[in-house]
Amino acid sequence: MNYDVIVIGSGPGGYVAAIRASQLGMKVAVVERAELGGICLNWGCIPTKALLKSAQVYGYLSHAADYGVSVSGDIKADFEAMVKRSRGVAEGMSKGIQFLFKKNKIDHIAGTGKLKSGKVVEVTDAGGKKTDYQANHVILATGARSRELPNLKQDGKKIIGYREAMTLDKQPKSMVVVGSGAIGSEFAYFYHTIGTQVTLVEFMPNVVPVEDEEVSKQLERSFKKSGMKVMTSSTVESVDTSGELCKVTVKTKKGEEIIEAEIVLSAVGISTNLEGLGLEETGVAIDKGKVVVDDFYKTSVDGVYAIGDIVHGPALAHVASHEGILCVEKIAGKHVEPLDYGNIPGCTYTQPEIASVGMTEKAAREAGYEIKVGKFPYSASGKASAAGSKEGFVKVIFDAKYGEWLGAHMIGDNVTEMIAEVVVARKLETTGEEIIKAVHPHPTMSEAVMEAVAAAYDEVIHI
Amino acid sequence: MNYDVIVIGSGPGGYVAAIRASQLGMKVAVVERAELGGICLNWGCIPTKALLKSAQVYGYLSHAADYGVSVSGDIKADFEAMVKRSRGVAEGMSKGIQFLFKKNKIDHIAGTGKLKSGKVVEVTDAGGKKTDYQANHVILATGARSRELPNLKQDGKKIIGYREAMTLDKQPKSMVVVGSGAIGSEFAYFYHTIGTQVTLVEFMPNVVPVEDEEVSKQLERSFKKSGMKVMTSSTVESVDTSGELCKVTVKTKKGEEIIEAEIVLSAVGISTNLEGLGLEETGVAIDKGKVVVDDFYKTSVDGVYAIGDIVHGPALAHVASHEGILCVEKIAGKHVEPLDYGNIPGCTYTQPEIASVGMTEKAAREAGYEIKVGKFPYSASGKASAAGSKEGFVKVIFDAKYGEWLGAHMIGDNVTEMIAEVVVARKLETTGEEIIKAVHPHPTMSEAVMEAVAAAYDEVIHI
Repeated sequence: MNYDVIVIGSGPGGYVAAIRASQLGMKVAVVERAELGGICLNWGCIPTKALLKSAQVYGYLSHAADYGVSVSGDIKADFEAMVKRSRGVAEGMSKGIQFLFKKNKIDHIAGTGKLKSGKVVEVTDAGGKKTDYQANHVILATGARSRELPNLKQDGKKIIGYREAMTLDKQPKSMVVVGSGAIGSEFAYFYHTIGTQVTLVEFMPNVVPVEDEEVSKQLERSFKKSGMKVMTSSTVESVDTSGELCKVTVKTKKGEEIIEAEIVLSAVGISTNLEGLGLEETGVAIDKGKVVVDDFYKTSVDGVYAIGDIVHGPALAHVASHEGILCVEKIAGKHVEPLDYGNIPGCTYTQPEIASVGMTEKAAREAGYEIKVGKFPYSASGKASAAGSKEGFVKVIFDAKYGEWLGAHMIGDNVTEMIAEVVVARKLETTGEEIIKAVHPHPTMSEAVMEAVAAAYDEVIHI
Repeated sequence: MNYDVIVIGSGPGGYVAAIRASQLGMKVAVVERAELGGICLNWGCIPTKALLKSAQVYGYLSHAADYGVSVSGDIKADFEAMVKRSRGVAEGMSKGIQFLFKKNKIDHIAGTGKLKSGKVVEVTDAGGKKTDYQANHVILATGARSRELPNLKQDGKKIIGYREAMTLDKQPKSMVVVGSGAIGSEFAYFYHTIGTQVTLVEFMPNVVPVEDEEVSKQLERSFKKSGMKVMTSSTVESVDTSGELCKVTVKTKKGEEIIEAEIVLSAVGISTNLEGLGLEETGVAIDKGKVVVDDFYKTSVDGVYAIGDIVHGPALAHVASHEGILCVEKIAGKHVEPLDYGNIPGCTYTQPEIASVGMTEKAAREAGYEIKVGKFPYSASGKASAAGSKEGFVKVIFDAKYGEWLGAHMIGDNVTEMIAEVVVARKLETTGEEIIKAVHPHPTMSEAVMEAVAAAYDEVIHI
C-alpha cells in the first residue's frame, strides 16, 4: 500500500498531523501499537483532568458549609469510581479519534512501526507479522514515556509512574511523590485532596521549578496550607521496598530523613521513545536524545519528519499538535511561519491552577531586559471573592524599552482558561495600553490580566 | 471646598473614574447616598456571583456520585447562610472601595448630589443639611435601578426586584421570574438549582434575547433539561397577590395560563436614575431617558460629564468603568481613543455560562455581511469531557470578504473567562489564521475558540 503520508504514533502530534494532512488532500495512514490518541488522551492530559475534577468536587464537598450548603452525613472519596470515570473519559476520547480517522479516511495500521530506508515503514503487528508500507513522507511522532532514575526503579507496584498512578486498585493511605513538575504536582494535589497523606519531594529549591519563582512560592504555600508535606532542595537517595511500607530516604539540606509510604510515585520527567524506530539504520540524526529537525520538522533524511516530544522544544500536547499541523502544511506546499517557541503556554491543573507563557522575571532579567513588572492579586478581584478563590495572582512582565510583552505568570482559579488571551495578544504584538483599554467583562477573573498590565504601567485601579 | 473633579455616584463608573482621576493628579470627591461601590458591588454583579457560586457548589453536591464522591446523608441548601455569605462578600468589596479612596486621597461625601449651574454640586446629607461644593469638572454617574412595569408593580414582598431577590428571609418554594435577560436568567438558575420551583417567563421568542439565537436555544434546552419551566413568547398580564400565593396570569401563544407562586421576581430591565439630579435646571440635554454625551462623555453643559448606565450604550459595569477612565483621561489632556462599542463583551453567569461579543449571526446577515460561521461543540472538547461539562459550544462569525472577526458567542463552562481573548484579538484586528495558529494550551476549554475559528475556515481538527 502506498501513502502520501504515514505517521508513526497517534498521540496529539500524530493524529492531528494525520487529520490535517487528510484535509489537505493527502492519503494518510497512522501506525499505532497501543490505544489511538497516545499518552495524552489515554494516560496523560485527559484522564488526569478527569481525576482532578473529581478531587475538585470532593474539595467543594469538604468545604460545602463555606458556600451555604449543609451535608448531614459522611463524604467519601469513592476511589474506584473516580478511576472508572477517568478511564471512561479517556476511552470516549480515544473512540473520538477512531471516528475522526474514519471521517477523514485515515487508515489506522495497528502495530509497531519502524522506519526503513526509502521511506518504507515496516509494521509488526501483535502476532509478530511484519508488513511494509511505502510513503512519500514519513512523520515520526512516537512521543515519550515516564523517565526512570537508577535509584528509583519503577516496579509498577510500590514504585510507580504516572500510568499506574491513575489506575491504582485502591486509594493508598500514604504516598511520596518525587518531582514537582506538572505531573508530580497534579498527582500530589489529587491524592492529598481525597485524603491520602502526601509528601512531595523536589530536587530544586522550588516546586514547579520551571515557573516564575513567585508562582512556585504561592503553590508551595497553598499546598502546605492544605496540609501537604512539601520538601524542596531534597533528593530521594533510595527506596527500601522490602517491608509493608516503602522506606524512602530523602536527603535534605538539614540531613537525611526517612519517610514511610505505601506508594512512591516517580514523576521526574520523561524519556523519548526512539528505540527500535530504525533511526540509526536509516541515518536519522539524533542529538541529546532528540531527533534533529529544521524549522518545519524535516529530519536529516529526505522525506522523513519528526514532531512532538521526540524533537526539541517543550514536551507538551499542544506543541506536538501545532508542529504536526505546520509539518503537513509545509509538505502540502502552503506558506507557513515557523512555530514561535517563545510563545508556548504551559498549564498545571492543581488548585490553585497555574498557567504561564514567555519569560519568567528571572529569565527576563538574565537576558538583560530592563523590565516593567505588574502584579494583581486575586484577593482584590471581585469575582475571585465571590467564588471564594482569593488565593493567587496574575503577574506580567513587559520590556520597559520597546513595550514587548515578555511573559505572564498566573496562579489561581481559572487561569488555565485565561492564558490564551496572553498568547494571542503576544502573537498579535500587543502593547500594554491595548490590553488596559480592552474591555474585559466584569466580574471575571480575566480582569486580573488587564489589571496586572495596568499595574505594570502604574494605572491599576483596584489595588 | 473646591475640587478638580466631583463624581456623583460611586458605582463601577464613578469610583473607577475617581481613582483614575486621582492617579492623574486631580483632587477628587465622590458623592454617594448609599453604599460605596454602587449597585454593582452591593446589589448586582458581586453578591449575585456569590449566590451563583453557592448554587454551583450545591449542584456539584447533588451530582457528587457522577464524580466518584459519595455522600451518605442529606444535602441541604442553607439559604440563610448563602445570603449571609453573599452579603459578606459585598461588604468586603465595599470596604475595599473605602480603602482605595483613602489610598488615592479621594473624599467621600455622603449624601445625595444635585447639579447646580456653575459646576456646583449641592449635597443633601442624611439629616437634610445641604452643602455646596465647587468643581472644575462634574461627572454624573448615578446609574440605574430595577424597571417597574405598570402591571408588575413591586411591593417588595410578593412582587420583588433584584435587591429583594438576593436578600429574602427564606427560600421560597416557588417563584415566577419575569424577564430572561442576564439578571432574570441568573436568578432563575440560582433558585431552581437550590430547589425552588421556578417558572421563567420571557416576552420575546427566545430566552436571553440579546444573545445569538443558537445560544438562547441551548440555554433554554439546558434549563428545561434541569426541570425548570420556561415560557417564551409569553407576557405576564397581571398578578393577583391577594391570596397566600400569587396568581400570575400569563398570556402565551396558546392562550392564558395561571401560575401560582410564592414570589414574583420582576427582571424586566432597568430605569436610569436621573430624577432630582438638577439636569433640567442646568440645561443638561437628555434624549430617551439617557444623558446626551459626546465621544468622551461631555454633556451639553460645559464641564459636566456623564458615564455609565445613564448614557447610551450597554448598561454594564465594565462599560461604565472604561467610560469613567476615558472621561477623566480626556479631562487630563491625555490622547485617548473613543470606546469601541462594537467590542463590548456581555456575560451571563448561569450554568452553562454565556459570553458573547460583537454581532450575532442574524445581526451580521442583516447588516449585509457575507459571513463565515464556525462552531465547535463542547462535546468534542477533551477538557469539557474531563470536567463533565459537555453542554455548550463556541460559535464565531467572520466577514468572508475582509476576514474581520464580527462576533463570538459562547455557552458552556468557563466561557465568561474565555471571552477576553476574543475582545483583545478583535481590538488587535486579528485574522482567523492568527487565532488558528496561536498555541492554545491543551487540555483547556479555550481550545474551543481556536477550533471554532478553524471550523470557520474549514481547518477544524476535532470535529
